[in-house]
Amino acid sequence: MLTNRRWVLARWPQGIPTQEDFRLESAPLPSPAAGQVVVRTLYLSVDPYVRGRMRNVRSYVPPYQIGDTIDGDVVAEVVSSQAPELAPGSFVAGRLGWQEYAVADASAVRRVTEQPAGLSAHLGVLGMTGLTAYFGLFDVGALKSGETVLVSGAAGAVGSAVGQLARIRGARAVGIAGSDEKVRFLREIGFDEAVNYKTAGNLRKALREACPAGVDVYFDNVGGEISDAAMTLINRRARAVICGQIAGLNRERPELGPRSTPLYLLINRARMEGFLVFDYVDRYPAALEELSGWVREGRLRHRETVVEGIENVPRAFIGLFSGTNTGKQVVKVAEPAR
Amino acid sequence: MLTNRRWVLARWPQGIPTQEDFRLESAPLPSPAAGQVVVRTLYLSVDPYVRGRMRNVRSYVPPYQIGDTIDGDVVAEVVSSQAPELAPGSFVAGRLGWQEYAVADASAVRRVTEQPAGLSAHLGVLGMTGLTAYFGLFDVGALKSGETVLVSGAAGAVGSAVGQLARIRGARAVGIAGSDEKVRFLREIGFDEAVNYKTAGNLRKALREACPAGVDVYFDNVGGEISDAAMTLINRRARAVICGQIAGLNRERPELGPRSTPLYLLINRARMEGFLVFDYVDRYPAALEELSGWVREGRLRHRETVVEGIENVPRAFIGLFSGTNTGKQVVKVAEPAR
Repeated sequence: MLTNRRWVLARWPQGIPTQEDFRLESAPLPSPAAGQVVVRTLYLSVDPYVRGRMRNVRSYVPPYQIGDTIDGDVVAEVVSSQAPELAPGSFVAGRLGWQEYAVADASAVRRVTEQPAGLSAHLGVLGMTGLTAYFGLFDVGALKSGETVLVSGAAGAVGSAVGQLARIRGARAVGIAGSDEKVRFLREIGFDEAVNYKTAGNLRKALREACPAGVDVYFDNVGGEISDAAMTLINRRARAVICGQIAGLNRERPELGPRSTPLYLLINRARMEGFLVFDYVDRYPAALEELSGWVREGRLRHRETVVEGIENVPRAFIGLFSGTNTGKQVVKVAEPAR
Repeated sequence: MLTNRRWVLARWPQGIPTQEDFRLESAPLPSPAAGQVVVRTLYLSVDPYVRGRMRNVRSYVPPYQIGDTIDGDVVAEVVSSQAPELAPGSFVAGRLGWQEYAVADASAVRRVTEQPAGLSAHLGVLGMTGLTAYFGLFDVGALKSGETVLVSGAAGAVGSAVGQLARIRGARAVGIAGSDEKVRFLREIGFDEAVNYKTAGNLRKALREACPAGVDVYFDNVGGEISDAAMTLINRRARAVICGQIAGLNRERPELGPRSTPLYLLINRARMEGFLVFDYVDRYPAALEELSGWVREGRLRHRETVVEGIENVPRAFIGLFSGTNTGKQVVKVAEPAR
């Protein structure tokens, strides 16, 4: 019988999570039933939304209980199979959590391949973050050619895809990020302009210079003061897509800011909308096909920040809140066996 | 030649407007050209949106210049006519401003009748405020039967129509207002619940009790702390319709409040949208016909607060910001001649 190690919630975090909020547990792995597979995690995703479940309040998803295994997408290799369609050695992706092994229904995972971008890309540009950018920008944001998209958290996994998808759609892409290195990365992957909010001084003025025709879609991963500045630049009929609010995630009480957003929405007959990628699950296959095509053509590039070892999963997660990652933050847990 | 008196902007207001920000000017009325009519104002509308134009900043409409006649809808009687379709004695409505007389293109006014609700109703429930409630609730808010609508500024002209339209559509209507008398008025005209925000103590708790199934459409005329409380109650896929922001209109800089709205929108996959009734002008005739039908059937009631005399227009306007009006605030300027 395999021994599985998994990260569980040890206590409710106060503010930014710390190592002590998590506990690495060992437990024997159950045997698979008919239609199930045993998989070994190769790469594992850490995502800001997890912080939203680490609090003891009612929300759209139930919060974690103490002792629950923490959520996350993984790319894994099938070790043994009770499902004829998934032979040992196959690669799969699914939401199997922060653990070394899992027993999963074959229907709960999807087959993935090393082409065109490597296995770990299925956690990012060809996984949840790519899909989030795709549906957020094209559906919620209803982006049209010739418009200007402003993206906060632009050097993150979602943000860096958003800017490139905007360019593919024929729009102008402007990114906001927190270091000069990230700004260089954004220009490299095709953003028209990028602004370092930490050194910009007057951020509103810097954004106005970067968006001379105003902002038609504001794609927000961050919230807080960055959004205050961005919202002053929206055009008539603009769409503000609320994808994440990392600036507020670790606060017990919301920060104070100017109550100006509804006024900007009113003046510009604009809208602000929150969305969740899981609502688009029926359209994942078609979207992934389109995203894969752009990756193959070299029009959609991605970067990863990789941390190694199951021991280091909480550290990789905690780093998201200080922006230590550029592009998708993944944890490499094991090498493929074959 | 007629002498016309009109209210013009004397200076930019600081904060809540005062009498001294306006000046009553006398000037000879020009002669009408072919296709024009001379009209005499009978009733005149004062509206919060005017405050938005009384500031020296770029906006969606150009601000007033010092000396400009202040905007407003009027109901007027045709005094003399160079337009065959509008005989003297006809009643018309149009956006002719705060003045006793006007020379207007016949195409810039619409004919109105004393039936079914009196001439002044064309400034309110059968005019811009009724249309604002109609398009805001049904189009922007996309209200469905069985949902709950929460309305701020509910005893105002727009708000009181919103609640009744919600009931007509088969929804639950809950109003927020600023006095017990207004609360009684809201119950009288059919609101299911009404909350006095000045005496409620914990407003969020009072609203939660009034909206046990949460809020599907939040129709906001007010903004500020009332919206902070309302937004905590929104349901999944809720729509916040931003119609007015009277709480912030008189501030030079926005007030501070919790930056929680984007988070509530995200958690609930909800949206907040600003709108302007003028964008629906093509659909006014059909909407007015429907509104008239409901008024005739007694299903859509309205109340007016009437001030008399052209001298008192600024006072009626200023009163909007302390809530002296219940229902539509109008100024009666003259009696019909016939």
